[in-house]
Amino acid sequence: MEDHIRYDSDSHVLDLLDQRLLPTQESRVLCQSTADIVTALKDMVVRGAPAIGVTAAWGCVLALREVRQEPLWRAALEDRLERIASARPTAVNLRWAVERMRRLWTARAEADPDTLLSLWLEEAAAMQAEDIAACKALGRFGAERIRPGDTIMTHCNAGALATAGYGTALGVIRAAWENGKNIRVIANETRPFLQGARLTAYELHKNGIPVTVACDNACALLMRRGMVQCVVVGADRIAANGDTANKIGTCGVALLAREHGIPFYVAAPLSTIDRSIASGADIPIEERPAREVTHVGDTRICPDGVPVFNFAFDVTPAALITGIVTEQGVLEPPYSQSIPDAFARAGR
Amino acid sequence: MEDHIRYDSDSHVLDLLDQRLLPTQESRVLCQSTADIVTALKDMVVRGAPAIGVTAAWGCVLALREVRQEPLWRAALEDRLERIASARPTAVNLRWAVERMRRLWTARAEADPDTLLSLWLEEAAAMQAEDIAACKALGRFGAERIRPGDTIMTHCNAGALATAGYGTALGVIRAAWENGKNIRVIANETRPFLQGARLTAYELHKNGIPVTVACDNACALLMRRGMVQCVVVGADRIAANGDTANKIGTCGVALLAREHGIPFYVAAPLSTIDRSIASGADIPIEERPAREVTHVGDTRICPDGVPVFNFAFDVTPAALITGIVTEQGVLEPPYSQSIPDAFARAGR
Repeated sequence: MEDHIRYDSDSHVLDLLDQRLLPTQESRVLCQSTADIVTALKDMVVRGAPAIGVTAAWGCVLALREVRQEPLWRAALEDRLERIASARPTAVNLRWAVERMRRLWTARAEADPDTLLSLWLEEAAAMQAEDIAACKALGRFGAERIRPGDTIMTHCNAGALATAGYGTALGVIRAAWENGKNIRVIANETRPFLQGARLTAYELHKNGIPVTVACDNACALLMRRGMVQCVVVGADRIAANGDTANKIGTCGVALLAREHGIPFYVAAPLSTIDRSIASGADIPIEERPAREVTHVGDTRICPDGVPVFNFAFDVTPAALITGIVTEQGVLEPPYSQSIPDAFARAGR
Repeated sequence: MEDHIRYDSDSHVLDLLDQRLLPTQESRVLCQSTADIVTALKDMVVRGAPAIGVTAAWGCVLALREVRQEPLWRAALEDRLERIASARPTAVNLRWAVERMRRLWTARAEADPDTLLSLWLEEAAAMQAEDIAACKALGRFGAERIRPGDTIMTHCNAGALATAGYGTALGVIRAAWENGKNIRVIANETRPFLQGARLTAYELHKNGIPVTVACDNACALLMRRGMVQCVVVGADRIAANGDTANKIGTCGVALLAREHGIPFYVAAPLSTIDRSIASGADIPIEERPAREVTHVGDTRICPDGVPVFNFAFDVTPAALITGIVTEQGVLEPPYSQSIPDAFARAGR
C-alpha cells in the first residue's frame, strides 16, 4: 500500500487512492492542479497527518508547474502554497510540508521556476521516502512495548494509508507482527468517517494481521473485560508539552485506558510535533460538514432539521500518554524535556 | 407518540410503529401471532426495556388467542410465553411482564381460556397505562435535578418510543421542559443501531425541545469544553446493588462524566430493577448480529471477512451513578438500601 500516493513525473499527475470509497471500491483520483489538491485534502480523498504532508509537498510541485510561465509567478505561487497549507487546520504536517518546500525556495531565492521545479521534485520524493523510513524506525521502537499475545486497540487509521506507507500506530503493530509476536488488533470503527472500520480493518486484513472491528461505544466494555492490553494511536499534532490532537474520540479512549490501567501510546514522526505551541489548548480543532454525521452513504440517520456537532479531532492531555513513539525512540514524560532531546538527537 | 404500541381489541392485532425505519419513514408492523411478536422483539421493530415489556404483555394475549381452542392449551401457552420471555436476554422488563401475566393465570388456575383472555386484556392495558404514569411520575422527580439552562446529554433512546409513552430519561427532560426550564439536549448517536440519532432526535425535534446530535466519539470533547451539565440515561436492567445495564457505550459516558464532575442519572421505573440479582456481573449481555455493525442501510462499512464485536449493552457500576430516578423518587446511594425502601413504599 506504499503506492496510495503516486506521483508520475512524466505526466505530472498525482495519483491518489480514493480513501472515501474503501473498503468496497479501490478507485483513484488524479490531481493535476492546486485546486485538485485542495479539494482532495478537504474532501478527505487522502487523510492522515503524514499522508497529507506528503500530498501537500507534491501539491507544491503542481502549484509551481501551474504558475511557472507567469511573469508574476512568485506571488502566484505564494498564494497557491497558502491555499494548500490551509486546506485543513489541525494536522501540523500539512503546513510543515509546505514550509519545508518554501524554505528550499527561500534558500535559492533567485532560482528560476525550472530550477526550483527540479529541486522540489527531489524534495517531495525525499519527504515521501523519509516518511516511510520514519514509520519503519518508530515501528521498531514501538514494537518493543508490545508483548506476545497482546490485543492492541487502535482508533481511527494511522496506517500505511495515513502516511506515505507502513504507518505510525499500525507501523508499531506491523513491526510487532513482523517480529513474530502473536498479536490481535481491535479497530475502533471511528465515527463519523469510519476510518477504523473502513481503512484500518482493510489494511490489516489485507496483510493477514488478525483484526476485529468494534463500535467506538464498545471501548469501556472491552477494557473492563480485560480484552485490551495496550492502546496505540496516531496523532495530527503534538504540542511542546506532549498534549496530542488526534481523531475525535481519542481522548475518551485515553481516559478509559487510564481508568483500566492500560498503557496508551501515541505513535508519530517528529514532523507531527509542533514545538511552536505550548499546549493542546492552542491546537485549532477542525469542524467538518454536518453530512458526515447525518448520512452514511445515501442513508440519512438523523431527522432533517436537527443540528449536529462534527468536531473532527480532540486533544488528549499529555498526562494520559504513556509514551510517544517516534523515529528517535519512545519519548517518556516529562515530554517538555524528552521532545527537545529527540529533536536534538535528530539534529533539528 | 403514545400510540406507537396500539392494541386493537376488535381485530386482535398489535400495531407497532416500526422503529427500524425512523426517522425517514413512519411505517407500522401488524402482529397477529406469537411468532410475529417474537420477530418484532428480536428484530427491534420495538425496543427499549419498558416498551418491550408492554409489547410482551400484548404478546401473551395473542399467544392465548392462538391456543385457546386446543385441548392441551395450557402446555401450548406455557411454551409460547417462554418464547416471548426469552426473545431478548438483557432487559428484565420482558420477563417481568410475562411473569406478571403468568401470576394472574396462576391465581386463577382453573379459569377457562375465555375468562383468562378477558383478564389478560385488562392486565395488558393496565400495564401500558401504568408505564406511562410511572414515566410521568419519575419525570417530575428527575426534573427537580435539572437546572434552567442546563445542557443534558443522553445516550440511546429512553423516550416515548422506549416506553409506553413519555419516556424515562426523556421523561425527565420532557418534564423539565414542561416546567419551563430552558434546557438543551445532546443526543449521542449511539452506534451501532443509532437510536440516539434516529429516535431521540426524532422525538425531541417533533416536540420542539432543542436537540443536537453528536457522534459517541464527541463525548469527551463536549464534556471537557463544559458543554454538558448533566447526563440522564435509561436502563435495561438494574441489579440489587444499583449496577445498571444499558445500551453499549453508557459505561464509558458514565466514566467520562465522573472524570469531569458531571452528575450522571439513570431513569427507570421500578419494573426495570431486578432484585433477584446481586450485581451487574449477573446480567446477561446480548450479542447481536454482525450486520448491525458492518452495514448502515445498504452501505457496507467494514471489509468483507473481518469479524466484529456487537455487544448490545454494557454495565455501569453503581459507584458512577449519582441517582436512580424512579416513580418513587430519586434513589440515592447506597442503592442496596434505597432500592428496597422504594419497593416498600410502592407496596411491592
